[in-house]
Amino acid sequence: MVERKRLQDDVCPSARALDVIGDWWSLLIVRDAFDGLSRFGEFQQSLGIAKNILAARLRSLVQRGILQTSPAEAGRMSYQLTPKGRDLFPVMVALRQWGEQHLFESGERRSRLVERDTGEVVRLEVRAANGRPIGPDDAMIVKPDPLER
Amino acid sequence: MVERKRLQDDVCPSARALDVIGDWWSLLIVRDAFDGLSRFGEFQQSLGIAKNILAARLRSLVQRGILQTSPAEAGRMSYQLTPKGRDLFPVMVALRQWGEQHLFESGERRSRLVERDTGEVVRLEVRAANGRPIGPDDAMIVKPDPLER
Repeated sequence: MVERKRLQDDVCPSARALDVIGDWWSLLIVRDAFDGLSRFGEFQQSLGIAKNILAARLRSLVQRGILQTSPAEAGRMSYQLTPKGRDLFPVMVALRQWGEQHLFESGERRSRLVERDTGEVVRLEVRAANGRPIGPDDAMIVKPDPLER
Repeated sequence: MVERKRLQDDVCPSARALDVIGDWWSLLIVRDAFDGLSRFGEFQQSLGIAKNILAARLRSLVQRGILQTSPAEAGRMSYQLTPKGRDLFPVMVALRQWGEQHLFESGERRSRLVERDTGEVVRLEVRAANGRPIGPDDAMIVKPDPLER
């Protein structure tokens, strides 16, 4: 096992985010929840994941406030994204966009994320306060003042 | 160990992206590389990671075309993001933004990503083709046609 550095108190928001959702199964479950899946069996079928691992990941996502449960028929549970979970939408779109750019051959079959009304592909951009699209060279990290609380 | 489903041939670009960068250390190394770190010792100091694990993660990021190496003084290596690695910028910004929204107390110390020229905080938005900001309810996944290649 890899020893895991505790990042929950890190001053870097990216590090804290990875502490909470930085495992591979959790983000795939979140992706499926965005896609409308809500039942244990649906996630299992989509992900091809062992039941005990899926149960642990779902429990963790509920504990972390990303999924919430409600009773469904036959005594089963239904899982939905909370508002905190729904705010992961840009993370999912950013991962998707990078995958599209770099991990497919030209013309290779892929799923697409489109706007419901128009069918046009959804895009994501990093922007300055004035709305101008910017890249990594236009931005810099500012560390917190050591005395700031 | 968790058995890892092979996602490298998945039709979903998010799944492929997670297959390539969906481990916690890799994205923290990428974050540090965006922040200008380039030497083994710099990453080690920043991440508090064992040398053998850091070496394996760096090797994997180079193999996957996310980092490239160049010789530095004293026979050491320097690591820089490739164009493919730099295209992870929106992923890092999206993770950061979600961390800021949900993982900090009000007023808690945090690092900030700002535009170099103005010092204003950088933002990221998902947009439709016409430029309108959209949320998860405005978008849907379209699966590839089974006969499409």
